[in-house]
Amino acid sequence: MDHFYKAALDEAKKGLHEGGIPIGSVLVHGGKIIGRGHNKRVQSGSCVLHGEMDALENAGRQPASVYQNSVIYTTLSPCPMCTGAILLYGIPKVIVGENKNFLGAEDHLRNNGVEVEVIQDQETIDMMAKFIQDKPELWNEDIGE
Amino acid sequence: MDHFYKAALDEAKKGLHEGGIPIGSVLVHGGKIIGRGHNKRVQSGSCVLHGEMDALENAGRQPASVYQNSVIYTTLSPCPMCTGAILLYGIPKVIVGENKNFLGAEDHLRNNGVEVEVIQDQETIDMMAKFIQDKPELWNEDIGE
Repeated sequence: MDHFYKAALDEAKKGLHEGGIPIGSVLVHGGKIIGRGHNKRVQSGSCVLHGEMDALENAGRQPASVYQNSVIYTTLSPCPMCTGAILLYGIPKVIVGENKNFLGAEDHLRNNGVEVEVIQDQETIDMMAKFIQDKPELWNEDIGE
Repeated sequence: MDHFYKAALDEAKKGLHEGGIPIGSVLVHGGKIIGRGHNKRVQSGSCVLHGEMDALENAGRQPASVYQNSVIYTTLSPCPMCTGAILLYGIPKVIVGENKNFLGAEDHLRNNGVEVEVIQDQETIDMMAKFIQDKPELWNEDIGE
């Protein structure tokens, strides 16, 4: 498994062990991880810190040139909010762990010139499927349903 | 001026007095403000807490039914990230203070069924114009440019 994707998956697992929603993300620039994060709905009572948002937040304030030369890895297909953040900052490439359990706004990303690569990692698919089965109310809350 | 819009503008002014980017927002449900916020880039070093995001965050975790019967007020036309958050949670209506200084993703909101009303409040326009003139680098950073 790709080193960076493994780091995103490790973030998702960390979230799961904390009793949270297992979605993780890393922001990579210049061959280095500059931000790591995972969904914080349960842990911080946050409705904005999805995995990708938490990775962006933990990367801190960055100039546009950094975002525009970064890749964001996320274990799950990006929801409309995270998609919007990717578009706002002009991140050109997204590596997605899976979109079997949830298909986000990938078309909107692609229509705006973002390269989206979906790995369909089986370990990620199984982890997310089990979580949704175990805690459907938490999952629905996270996607606004 | 509308009571709720005034509260959003007061949030923007609070941000300005803190040395931050003067954009404010409130989330209104059942005739009451359930979340208030303003851009926290300077104050918290945050790249995700735009005004709208901060208002959503401060409203805390809410069931879908609350968002779906809420109105969000914001002093500036919503950027792609805040637009995505509005779409994620199914907020049906957005009241925008102005879009003269920045035109966000209003078309994307409307194309997805969200009602967008733009007030073009002169006080807001003047405040934002002065801020952009005074601190262009901060403004550009906030919109990823």
